[in-house]
Amino acid sequence: MQKKDSWLLPEGITEILPEQAARLEGLRRNLLDTFDCWGYQLVIPPFVDYLDSLLTGSGHDLDLQTFKLTDQLSGEMLGVRADMTPQVARMDAHNLKHEWPTRLCYAGTTLHTVGDPLEKTRSPMQIGAELYGHAGIESDYEVIRLMLEMLAISGVQNVHLDMGHVGIYRALVEQAGLNQRQEAELFDILQRKARTELAEWVDQFAMPEQFKAIFNALPKLNGGVEVLATAAGILAVGNPVISAALSDLQSIAGKLQRDYPALTVSFDLAELRGYHYHTGMVFAAFVPTVGREIARGGRYDNIGAVFGRARPATGFSADLKVLASLFDGAVDTARQTVFAPALDDSDLSQVIRDLRATGSRVVQQLPGQQGTAAEMGCSAVLEKNDRQWVIKPLADHSAGPRG
Amino acid sequence: MQKKDSWLLPEGITEILPEQAARLEGLRRNLLDTFDCWGYQLVIPPFVDYLDSLLTGSGHDLDLQTFKLTDQLSGEMLGVRADMTPQVARMDAHNLKHEWPTRLCYAGTTLHTVGDPLEKTRSPMQIGAELYGHAGIESDYEVIRLMLEMLAISGVQNVHLDMGHVGIYRALVEQAGLNQRQEAELFDILQRKARTELAEWVDQFAMPEQFKAIFNALPKLNGGVEVLATAAGILAVGNPVISAALSDLQSIAGKLQRDYPALTVSFDLAELRGYHYHTGMVFAAFVPTVGREIARGGRYDNIGAVFGRARPATGFSADLKVLASLFDGAVDTARQTVFAPALDDSDLSQVIRDLRATGSRVVQQLPGQQGTAAEMGCSAVLEKNDRQWVIKPLADHSAGPRG
Repeated sequence: MQKKDSWLLPEGITEILPEQAARLEGLRRNLLDTFDCWGYQLVIPPFVDYLDSLLTGSGHDLDLQTFKLTDQLSGEMLGVRADMTPQVARMDAHNLKHEWPTRLCYAGTTLHTVGDPLEKTRSPMQIGAELYGHAGIESDYEVIRLMLEMLAISGVQNVHLDMGHVGIYRALVEQAGLNQRQEAELFDILQRKARTELAEWVDQFAMPEQFKAIFNALPKLNGGVEVLATAAGILAVGNPVISAALSDLQSIAGKLQRDYPALTVSFDLAELRGYHYHTGMVFAAFVPTVGREIARGGRYDNIGAVFGRARPATGFSADLKVLASLFDGAVDTARQTVFAPALDDSDLSQVIRDLRATGSRVVQQLPGQQGTAAEMGCSAVLEKNDRQWVIKPLADHSAGPRG
Repeated sequence: MQKKDSWLLPEGITEILPEQAARLEGLRRNLLDTFDCWGYQLVIPPFVDYLDSLLTGSGHDLDLQTFKLTDQLSGEMLGVRADMTPQVARMDAHNLKHEWPTRLCYAGTTLHTVGDPLEKTRSPMQIGAELYGHAGIESDYEVIRLMLEMLAISGVQNVHLDMGHVGIYRALVEQAGLNQRQEAELFDILQRKARTELAEWVDQFAMPEQFKAIFNALPKLNGGVEVLATAAGILAVGNPVISAALSDLQSIAGKLQRDYPALTVSFDLAELRGYHYHTGMVFAAFVPTVGREIARGGRYDNIGAVFGRARPATGFSADLKVLASLFDGAVDTARQTVFAPALDDSDLSQVIRDLRATGSRVVQQLPGQQGTAAEMGCSAVLEKNDRQWVIKPLADHSAGPRG
């Protein structure tokens, strides 16, 4: 009945032991506290949801990554969340229903059926923040700044920011008159950055030559801020949505240059990141040591429409485990752990109670136990000195604890 | 395609909005910090696991409560954790492998297929602590005290503690010579406290009259500490395991009376709480307003054997959501939220940055947004006074923010 290796974990699933757990918990608190200081309120979306509502407005990718369960109580199909953003959008649209901008944040485990080929995990700890109810670039810029703040607090060095704008692609597709199937094919080719395939694909359609040239040019529209000027020339099809998008990107580029002069920023107009729900400016942060983006986000207006209310929305998220792995600061090493002897003594109990009440960590010995104070990671011991219990640093302590 | 009510949640599944989320997060931090002060280190078990290893040493109840998933990568059966205790035991047995006592704690979402009839939730946020590697009552008493501390910190009033000892029942079953099927039937009858059925059931077996009387008497062995003396008489079958168990309960009763004089404690020797993995002393905390126990625990020695190492173990757990619902203290109401105007001004940005860096909460207005500072829950605004940005309490502020 039992497999021989009962301790084996499924691929991409990990258990987190004390040292790493302390690191994760510390970072989690720092980040949530920072989000709070920016006015982002914590919400806790459910781990499972009706599949329909979980996949609302999202694409096929997310569907494939979602574990499905049959609900024994209703007979309906449930999904384990693979992404928390649509759930948070639902809270804004259905439950909170403010007229004014709503700022929400979250941190929790998600689950993916197969995981991203470049990710090692199938269970990211998604942490993120979302801003609802404002359509201007000021809200885009606020969430970009908060994402950069998150990376700074996480101790991530050498961040590279990649910016795009899904609205440009959407406007082009509409103006060129592509149908849904054609759009899906084009999206797939662009995501794979398959330029030869793109040229062949574009060639078979009866669309204006200008659009053929534009679609072929899209993957080349990436690089520094100068790409935006090049794009303005190539994409001059008299579409106000496209000019507004380019102007917004230019404006964000200026603000980033002013406020983060050391940050490297690139622009990629063929980058259509995400699960199909984005509608406007999108962005991602990279570091040289990690093969894929370490944080990502963007605008996804109106995702809440199906929950009763269409609102502008923008936000970002990251995997807390990835952030913690990039953080090489020390965790809690300065904190003293005091070893107390195994005595059922009321004075000692009071001393231990007082120490713990003031935040000290006290481990009480158990009668007959193995392991010395040092082996158990303690740096000091409680000893009776004449009539008082006193803390002695372990270096000054001649012998280990008496069992 | 879409159901009409896309915002509906499955039965027993909830989304947690800002006010309650802040309460849960605050309590979660307080409790984990307290566990840490007692030397219990945080671990984070995975949300899914191979089904075999998830259900190791546990019983049929837990199996029924566990959602099953097919792993697309391995083709094997996975389970969503319905209880974190076996996972934590595996960490102790397989990964940490200390010779000395190991203290671990955890907090995370679990999922139940149908939930307990008395519980309203199918997704408890399990929080708990486990102590491995010590078999004496000192470790039982340590976890009982820590559980009481958890309840005190949670602000729970009028706690009633119910104590039992699964070892007594197990010893009686063995000595009476019941086979596995018989034991399962008896267990079921005792769990349901069905006394008439019990008498009929006992009657059909060829066991010594003394055991028939004992099994019939078991459900009556509950009440105050005096029950232990009565039990010593009724259970006098010369079994050293039983006398040791009664003596341990007597000893814990004395300590509780000494250290928690106001706590009401009862003993119930037919209480076989839990998912079948308990082996010794078991305990649960009740309050008058909640129909079932609000925290529970006990000894479950050797559960780690299948993971390579048999260790004594004892611990407790609770649903953080239930604890938070019993806590009626105020959360964070004193904290000031400052509303800053929608200006892209470097002095203002610096003031906001400084305020946030020192832990103040600052919400910056977005151009053209709806909602006044007061509507957005702010208690103060940033205003330019001559040449300086100053914080003014909202009551002194004549007009709402200018859009």
